[in-house]
Amino acid sequence: MNTHFWSDGIATLEPYVPGEQPRVANLVKLNTNENPYPPSPRVAPAMAQAAEHLRLYPDPQSLALRQAIAHYHAADGITPDQVFVGNGSDEVLAHAFRAFFVHGGLPLLMPDISYSFYQVYCQLYDIPAQTVALRPDWQIGVADYAAIGSESSAGVVIANPNAPTGVALPLAQVEALLQAFPQRVVLIDEAYVDFGGESAIALVNRYANLLVVHTLSKSRSLAGLRVGFAIGQPHLVQALTRVKDSFNSYPLDRLAQAGAQAAYEDVNYFTECTQAIVRTREQLNAQLRQRGFEVLPSATNFVFARHPDHAGADIFAALRVQGVLVRHFAKPRIAQFLRITIGTPEHSQALLDALDVFLASSNGGASPQR
Amino acid sequence: MNTHFWSDGIATLEPYVPGEQPRVANLVKLNTNENPYPPSPRVAPAMAQAAEHLRLYPDPQSLALRQAIAHYHAADGITPDQVFVGNGSDEVLAHAFRAFFVHGGLPLLMPDISYSFYQVYCQLYDIPAQTVALRPDWQIGVADYAAIGSESSAGVVIANPNAPTGVALPLAQVEALLQAFPQRVVLIDEAYVDFGGESAIALVNRYANLLVVHTLSKSRSLAGLRVGFAIGQPHLVQALTRVKDSFNSYPLDRLAQAGAQAAYEDVNYFTECTQAIVRTREQLNAQLRQRGFEVLPSATNFVFARHPDHAGADIFAALRVQGVLVRHFAKPRIAQFLRITIGTPEHSQALLDALDVFLASSNGGASPQR
Repeated sequence: MNTHFWSDGIATLEPYVPGEQPRVANLVKLNTNENPYPPSPRVAPAMAQAAEHLRLYPDPQSLALRQAIAHYHAADGITPDQVFVGNGSDEVLAHAFRAFFVHGGLPLLMPDISYSFYQVYCQLYDIPAQTVALRPDWQIGVADYAAIGSESSAGVVIANPNAPTGVALPLAQVEALLQAFPQRVVLIDEAYVDFGGESAIALVNRYANLLVVHTLSKSRSLAGLRVGFAIGQPHLVQALTRVKDSFNSYPLDRLAQAGAQAAYEDVNYFTECTQAIVRTREQLNAQLRQRGFEVLPSATNFVFARHPDHAGADIFAALRVQGVLVRHFAKPRIAQFLRITIGTPEHSQALLDALDVFLASSNGGASPQR
Repeated sequence: MNTHFWSDGIATLEPYVPGEQPRVANLVKLNTNENPYPPSPRVAPAMAQAAEHLRLYPDPQSLALRQAIAHYHAADGITPDQVFVGNGSDEVLAHAFRAFFVHGGLPLLMPDISYSFYQVYCQLYDIPAQTVALRPDWQIGVADYAAIGSESSAGVVIANPNAPTGVALPLAQVEALLQAFPQRVVLIDEAYVDFGGESAIALVNRYANLLVVHTLSKSRSLAGLRVGFAIGQPHLVQALTRVKDSFNSYPLDRLAQAGAQAAYEDVNYFTECTQAIVRTREQLNAQLRQRGFEVLPSATNFVFARHPDHAGADIFAALRVQGVLVRHFAKPRIAQFLRITIGTPEHSQALLDALDVFLASSNGGASPQR
């Protein structure tokens, strides 16, 4: 590859690699934490109406959507000027890293095991990344961050519940983290919070350094629409807006704004879907444990599980052959694990059937693959 | 505003200010160069079909769309690996600035009068911007760029046809520019090329340093959908992809990919719309000249015009009062001008009627506003 014309630093970037989006049909797709249920039935009509005006630019401020999100969080005192929306939470995170974590070469703190895109953003913006090891019980150890402190860091980013572990940090611990970093932004990425975590949005009006990021890709079933948002006090939203307006004035198209707004307004549908997924998760956990798996306590729409007798890569491959796609990370400390998205009860059954075939052939010792 | 938590450089950013998107109805909106005609009738059905799978992530590579764009440009030998797509051409431009123009503090060359977002990207990525004055006839003076040269610059960005002047640079001059900068990327922003310019896409396979950027917001009537693309040799597309995958894996949602593809496949509709706009433009030019305006030769869907007897700001304000919205830039050298988007023939008539009211009242000298 001819890298002659590239900018400084482009050749050494290590871009994020998303989970596989297979083009073959009939796979049981439990690898990218998508929702097994379609979005609210209100979404399609709202988008069809928005499609009538496609020749015109969208609202660059996405005001109606921000109002709908603020209204949903009104009990926590959230107002539209505390809401920043973007083209998926990945774009919101990217802008947040640029807006808050570039401080003269100081390192950004994050868990050693977390959403791997955080380290990619650090490369893109030339921010040193300093990882802090999860505790042996896979919990984020707030005291370990506090020991480093506000003066020696550019800020903190954590996912809560964490990914790919699924483990949630109690809100009191989040608050302790906020208090330990009074001079820096603490970004809480709550992509999965609607499946059982406690949202820090309740703390936004008490902590000037708190930014909470959400996505509509998981609990609102809109991975295909690319909408995410951040909630924080207006001085943080204004910094994000300055970066956004220096990058792309119109990040959300007309259909995305209208569809996302409709999804936020249908609270009942949202509640039903998330409750169904939580039920399916607990049933699947019990079944996995019966088969000898250790399953970390999940507050998300996925489980993180390992089997004492089988390598994660082996189980992953055996499931793939049978048409069941899960996620395996060939990384230190977690290579034994699989991350399995919660689908419908039928998806769980398909996964368990495939697992049983693998376990039977492995235990028999006569698998032709071994 | 509390800027305490902001990153280095955020407080001094001067973000881009897009043209007004008024929320009041019944304005004749000729201020942001939108197409007066709706997108191809194939777009809505394609999007409705894509909406059936919104719970799933979109194709992160947008392969079908890139194939459709390459197919459209097949006569120039363009292949899908030479096409990079993004969330509007603004995002494509932002990624291109990051991918190609960061070279140890060397300045990026651009016209003094051009798309003002270029200077904003330079601020965002800490690239020095060096402007080169348009010639007195509003042409880009290629020799002025060549005199600076490849060794002393990070590259060149021009809009062709230029905005807000509307003036086109002949392809032979673009080629001279490419030859003058063999060590650097020359970015040609062709947002308006379909209304009368000559596209440099014909040169892509001969120049390793050429990147051409297009948008679907103007000639494809899809400003509300946010799709743009760049065409260049694969080593340039790969750099853009590295930046994109370090920022947001899925910049184009499912509906945007499907709608944009459908628009590209409907060549006849595209040709009819652009031809109608060119006809309306030439008719409007003649009418404006009859009223004493100087109109620069336009190869775009707008005209840039000034009246010898009236300040641009005064005409702008008088039109606004009458419900006709055009664009005025309070900037050196061009403050006398108005940029007027070409709409339908009816839009032209509304503009001319409002102008005539203003000119009559001004010439009479008894306008109550003066």
